[in-house]
Amino acid sequence: MLPSEPDLAAKGSYGSEMLYSPADVATIVRFGLDHGVRVLPEIDSPAHTGSWAVAYPDIVTCANMFWWPAESEWADRLASEPGTGQLNPLNPNTYQVLKNVIGDAVALFPEPFYHAGGDEIIPGCWKADPAIQSFLSENGTLSQLLEKFVNSTFPYIVSLNRTVVYWEDILLDANVKVDPAIVSSSEFYYLDCGHGGFVGNDSQYDPPPTSGGGGNGGSWCGPFKTWQTIYNYDIAYGLTPAETKLVLGGEVALWSEQADPTVLDVRIWPRASAMAETLWSGNRDESGKKRYAEAMDRLHEWRHRMVNKGIKAEPLQPLWCIKNPGMCNTVHPST
Amino acid sequence: MLPSEPDLAAKGSYGSEMLYSPADVATIVRFGLDHGVRVLPEIDSPAHTGSWAVAYPDIVTCANMFWWPAESEWADRLASEPGTGQLNPLNPNTYQVLKNVIGDAVALFPEPFYHAGGDEIIPGCWKADPAIQSFLSENGTLSQLLEKFVNSTFPYIVSLNRTVVYWEDILLDANVKVDPAIVSSSEFYYLDCGHGGFVGNDSQYDPPPTSGGGGNGGSWCGPFKTWQTIYNYDIAYGLTPAETKLVLGGEVALWSEQADPTVLDVRIWPRASAMAETLWSGNRDESGKKRYAEAMDRLHEWRHRMVNKGIKAEPLQPLWCIKNPGMCNTVHPST
Repeated sequence: MLPSEPDLAAKGSYGSEMLYSPADVATIVRFGLDHGVRVLPEIDSPAHTGSWAVAYPDIVTCANMFWWPAESEWADRLASEPGTGQLNPLNPNTYQVLKNVIGDAVALFPEPFYHAGGDEIIPGCWKADPAIQSFLSENGTLSQLLEKFVNSTFPYIVSLNRTVVYWEDILLDANVKVDPAIVSSSEFYYLDCGHGGFVGNDSQYDPPPTSGGGGNGGSWCGPFKTWQTIYNYDIAYGLTPAETKLVLGGEVALWSEQADPTVLDVRIWPRASAMAETLWSGNRDESGKKRYAEAMDRLHEWRHRMVNKGIKAEPLQPLWCIKNPGMCNTVHPST
Repeated sequence: MLPSEPDLAAKGSYGSEMLYSPADVATIVRFGLDHGVRVLPEIDSPAHTGSWAVAYPDIVTCANMFWWPAESEWADRLASEPGTGQLNPLNPNTYQVLKNVIGDAVALFPEPFYHAGGDEIIPGCWKADPAIQSFLSENGTLSQLLEKFVNSTFPYIVSLNRTVVYWEDILLDANVKVDPAIVSSSEFYYLDCGHGGFVGNDSQYDPPPTSGGGGNGGSWCGPFKTWQTIYNYDIAYGLTPAETKLVLGGEVALWSEQADPTVLDVRIWPRASAMAETLWSGNRDESGKKRYAEAMDRLHEWRHRMVNKGIKAEPLQPLWCIKNPGMCNTVHPST
């Protein structure tokens, strides 16, 4: 519930019990700081803004249209996941509302970073709008639309003394060059993955399955990213030394496609702890050897500490392994 | 805590707070029956009995030995998973204790079935015992040991008016012919799988990972069996009509290798519901088409009903899909 744009939440939320008030945000930010956690906002734009259309139908393209019409090709569809709507870069009202949103968010979160989004911008959604159709028919390009959008918001955020964070796609498409990177690979760092696709009526299930042991388990980013997958990932793998210097860090992400309070703790912990250790102290010992065996013991003990504090972190091993240290390794510690 | 063999639990359990008393069992059985659920016991034997050795060291072979010693081949190791110990089929005391256990269990569970186990019998564990070494050196065979074990317990269970259930392996190895089958495929019906291996110091993590999207996610039975994997499995797939007639049904299994109260609900539900529907009414509509799209809508609504009853079933879709029926399908319902 942003003070300058109260209608966005009042009209666009799922209900009055599913809003964060400014006081709620202040409580969360304060609670985080008291426990050594800094809370940053990401408000995605221009895509993923279908809910904005309830209050401001004129600034959103393709709102409430079906995301992937039958018989359409990928290039022509309106969204990459269900739920459609993108802010219209040609409408001046778009920037008035967006700047109010950014200004309020920056005031609520006392951190030097503001994440402006840029995720999953789909040309088809913009092309569904008559004004944008006219623009494109007069030799305008999609890149020009992106550049107009970024150039109308990026400098405003900078003027509020915030470092701007964007997803990589928009920067590449809009020809904006920003070098430093925070790694959040969907192949290694996405905590949602692996519990099945959430899209219904998916033809991948038509053939009779002969094996459940391979593939992605019915999820675009499957399988589940185990703590080992996360722990053993070297975020600079394959980069040159010059490129490696530009990597500021990494983040695991839980997008809540298949997460709500019932599974929040078990999806985040102890996998986020595994990533934290690799980014703080690396995943290798002094001789360069991966130290997942030692990490298993420490992580599982840490998991039990979290459970004792009321955090429902998932177990990594049977209780027997805790009661019999070293006996669950492939090699006995005494050999 | 079995009345005839109190030392097994008193000495072999993880602690006095981790025992089921006969009264606890009666409460569970009664609660199940009140809610339409029949509770059957499985007490595995002869393998997976390391905990019996604390009370009766003389009836268990290879107890407390390391499960997979360095430099040993698969055929020579002592267990297929950490934790070693198998009942000694040559020791008469074995059958005295085992019959007391079976008699008590049969009295506690008023069902016509008794599951006698037979899982993961490892020759190496028996071969570690001097008496069995002598038996084998005098031209005795492992099959004879298995047959002796089965022939000393199977008729006793039958005499207690129970139908005996065994895992397939022991029946094949002991030349016992029992045709009807309950399908519990590790490829489709194992609910533990996919959250990473629990064995430490596993060399599969040595090479630098270039992709987290493939493979088994570090788990022998990975990836996670999604509700779609379970729902779309035809348990008689590949069987002849004559073989299909012998399939009584199926069961999903949660072995608790990586499950305890923190994750119990989210691992079981709604995946067990998905299996239940396919076994009751099949996974195809009247035209023979897989009906996972319709099932997704029903299962997700059912999941929300379970959550409202206090069961922490995991979400299958974003809340947006509930609020926008049909819009998360690949094909719009109106097309």
